[in-house]
Amino acid sequence: MWKPDREGAIPLYRQIADHLQEMIVHGEYPPGSPLPSERKLAELYGVNRSTVVLAYAELRSLGLVESRPGSKTQVSSSWTQADSRTPEWHRYAENGGFLPNLPFLRRIRDALALDGTIIDFASGKLSTDLSPIREINDIMHGCSYHPDNGSDVSQGFPPLREALADFLERYRGIRTTASSILITSGSQQSLYLISQCLLSPGDAIAVETPSFTRSLSMFQSAGLRIYPLPMDENGVRPEGIRKLYSRYRIKMLFVNPNFQNPTGTLLQADRRKLLLDTASELGLPIVEDDPLSLTAYNTDYPPPIKAEDASSSTLYIGSFSKIAAAGLRIGWIVAPKSVIARLADARRQMDMGFSVIPQQIAAAFIESPLFQPHMERLRGQLQLKLDTLVEALHRHMGGLVQFSVPQGGMHLWCKVVPEIHDGKFLDEALKRGVAFVPGSLYGAESGYMRLTYARPQVGQIEEGVIKLAEALRAVVE
Amino acid sequence: MWKPDREGAIPLYRQIADHLQEMIVHGEYPPGSPLPSERKLAELYGVNRSTVVLAYAELRSLGLVESRPGSKTQVSSSWTQADSRTPEWHRYAENGGFLPNLPFLRRIRDALALDGTIIDFASGKLSTDLSPIREINDIMHGCSYHPDNGSDVSQGFPPLREALADFLERYRGIRTTASSILITSGSQQSLYLISQCLLSPGDAIAVETPSFTRSLSMFQSAGLRIYPLPMDENGVRPEGIRKLYSRYRIKMLFVNPNFQNPTGTLLQADRRKLLLDTASELGLPIVEDDPLSLTAYNTDYPPPIKAEDASSSTLYIGSFSKIAAAGLRIGWIVAPKSVIARLADARRQMDMGFSVIPQQIAAAFIESPLFQPHMERLRGQLQLKLDTLVEALHRHMGGLVQFSVPQGGMHLWCKVVPEIHDGKFLDEALKRGVAFVPGSLYGAESGYMRLTYARPQVGQIEEGVIKLAEALRAVVE
Repeated sequence: MWKPDREGAIPLYRQIADHLQEMIVHGEYPPGSPLPSERKLAELYGVNRSTVVLAYAELRSLGLVESRPGSKTQVSSSWTQADSRTPEWHRYAENGGFLPNLPFLRRIRDALALDGTIIDFASGKLSTDLSPIREINDIMHGCSYHPDNGSDVSQGFPPLREALADFLERYRGIRTTASSILITSGSQQSLYLISQCLLSPGDAIAVETPSFTRSLSMFQSAGLRIYPLPMDENGVRPEGIRKLYSRYRIKMLFVNPNFQNPTGTLLQADRRKLLLDTASELGLPIVEDDPLSLTAYNTDYPPPIKAEDASSSTLYIGSFSKIAAAGLRIGWIVAPKSVIARLADARRQMDMGFSVIPQQIAAAFIESPLFQPHMERLRGQLQLKLDTLVEALHRHMGGLVQFSVPQGGMHLWCKVVPEIHDGKFLDEALKRGVAFVPGSLYGAESGYMRLTYARPQVGQIEEGVIKLAEALRAVVE
Repeated sequence: MWKPDREGAIPLYRQIADHLQEMIVHGEYPPGSPLPSERKLAELYGVNRSTVVLAYAELRSLGLVESRPGSKTQVSSSWTQADSRTPEWHRYAENGGFLPNLPFLRRIRDALALDGTIIDFASGKLSTDLSPIREINDIMHGCSYHPDNGSDVSQGFPPLREALADFLERYRGIRTTASSILITSGSQQSLYLISQCLLSPGDAIAVETPSFTRSLSMFQSAGLRIYPLPMDENGVRPEGIRKLYSRYRIKMLFVNPNFQNPTGTLLQADRRKLLLDTASELGLPIVEDDPLSLTAYNTDYPPPIKAEDASSSTLYIGSFSKIAAAGLRIGWIVAPKSVIARLADARRQMDMGFSVIPQQIAAAFIESPLFQPHMERLRGQLQLKLDTLVEALHRHMGGLVQFSVPQGGMHLWCKVVPEIHDGKFLDEALKRGVAFVPGSLYGAESGYMRLTYARPQVGQIEEGVIKLAEALRAVVE
């Protein structure tokens, strides 16, 4: 990013004015568009606010920017030649079906991006030390790129699909073949493809509540009507499906049965069976999102619904992002051939598939002897972080929070006992250098928080909880 | 892919029956879905058709499949347990906005996938010997993966955006900054994002005709009304824009000014200026697709519209796929900051961005001393292929085709002089082992073909033209 040169002969305010002028002239800030506030620019360039005030004054004198009292500085709408108009970009940006992402998420993201020292219980990401960095680098350095490997792979690189078919049988008990697998750029794209290609605007779907997907604007952007599937500490309660189906003509069920995001719950075996039986009796598709099952701490891997589904009712979604290398951005969908063909065809219109290189690396990694030891280490480390978090919560927030301890995954779901305002609690926490995600983002009632313990270092966890306790006290008082 | 074991003790038909049974039971072919024809399966598994007939008979006797006389074999709708139904997947697959891709394209793709010996004037891809394979491998083996590089890069890996800002200034005369660049998974995704996020269903756009984008179902899928911008041998004719604008309230112009796909034309300087002046007078955005300008054979790189656009009217799209490494799948959009922010935000809902690894490689490649020599070699080789093609057309199809010789790129646009049926000509050509794309796919009238000369070997080109001449004679007679 551009920064003014503090050693140079040109005064800082001039450098900033020149840089802004260049951005305006080259169209980054079109005529009529707002410019950053003085405070924000000062922060960005690491200068005093008075320097920015001078820079803006300079640009005003050139007729490039204008500011009215009490309002923001903006690019003059008249600075270009008289017979030339700029498209009304703000109007164009309001088009299309995509709703903006939620403000809570933006606030958290912005805070984390600005301040690297925040203790991060918000991101669903592995900490660096849990990522198989050496393994991925070793594999990448042994990979060989060839352009014909990457030609026409809108369904995904065939050797990765073969490797995944073996992987799914071995680790998940799912018997499938490469032709029934679509490689995606992560679970987000899997859900996007399903909601855009297999459903139409106005269709009704049922989604676990609370649920990770409630935090996505994706379903709303696709024009879907969303009905809640109630949950308790044993996962989703399938009894209500039949009523939802007959009342709202539900078209699809979205579930995340293993160490659910955000609640950490594991769907119990009898419910799993009832869910599948009900869906297959109604001819109702289940989208089973299963990114975390391989993290099970002390138990066997919980079986997926897909493995027991003889009626082809389940679309199974998985990903490497939460268990191995988020930077590869590899996910997959397992579905009947006709569904896969449809999704792969639609994808040609979206992005024609993506680079083969991360797919080669992922295939080599799951087939290598490095994968199993990585997973064992990961399970152990996540359990250690969870234990540390639980102990710290008991010590510093005993009586203030209530939770069940998950058996795998990376999410601890906490009820906050005192009555609070979610947004204020989050603000106080961010101010003290700790981030979490308010439960309301997932469709829960107010007063819950998701503490995700994969990202902070073990040594930061207790400190993070202490800060949380302080923040909570600050809003309660 | 699964193949029967010819050395094994189990008869081939039994192996095939077992394999199909497994696919049916595991949901690849849901109840009621059609199975491949006997002929197709025989081809796929490399067995006699009678073997497949036996395999299907076996499955029929188990009640797993059923066939009525004169119709296809299908999975029995009743083979699963009585109280279980399969979702009507074919209905789900009809949902959503995505139209299926065009049958001509599928036919060509299927033919190329089945038979590797076809001389390929259809694909817009570099031949293997023109791809910088060694360069990409060397760079990849020197790259270092780190998961935090890949975190939250829905706008694209920052060092790649920085490198591209330099690249665009150096090679394209475009002055911009990293914050005005969005990295995409190729031009296809760039166009998809623009059509989905900056336009709404029912909006009118104007597109060069013929044009590559007419072969995409993407705009139709987005519900856009498409009006043609007429072209001649000097590129698009901008005079008609004003009329289109007042008559149909055109919202956006799509142009591909340099060595256009499919016509190979170069938009002349005075028209370039008139196009930009008209658009900026009307406040009308121009989407400038520029994947091939760096291949200019004997001239300077033609300047992009974006470089002369002081009114911020241009969204500039570029890509590495046609000039370097298609397997990286890296494209970009240069646009005003507010537009980039909107597209990056929408992208979080689609795929959250893609793997950082190909982005690291691309950044290192354009910054390395390997890039310039690669481009020089590529330009020389493309010119050699073009010269070879032009000579062969004169020798073997003189009088049968008419064309202008392009000054860069990879597309030669031919008018076929005798009156023909596009589809029949294509069929005859594929039968003889040569592929091209009929011009009608790009919105041209019947009787044109696009010969893309980047993919075949120099030594194959004359043979390909001889086959084309034979195919043409076969349809004319």
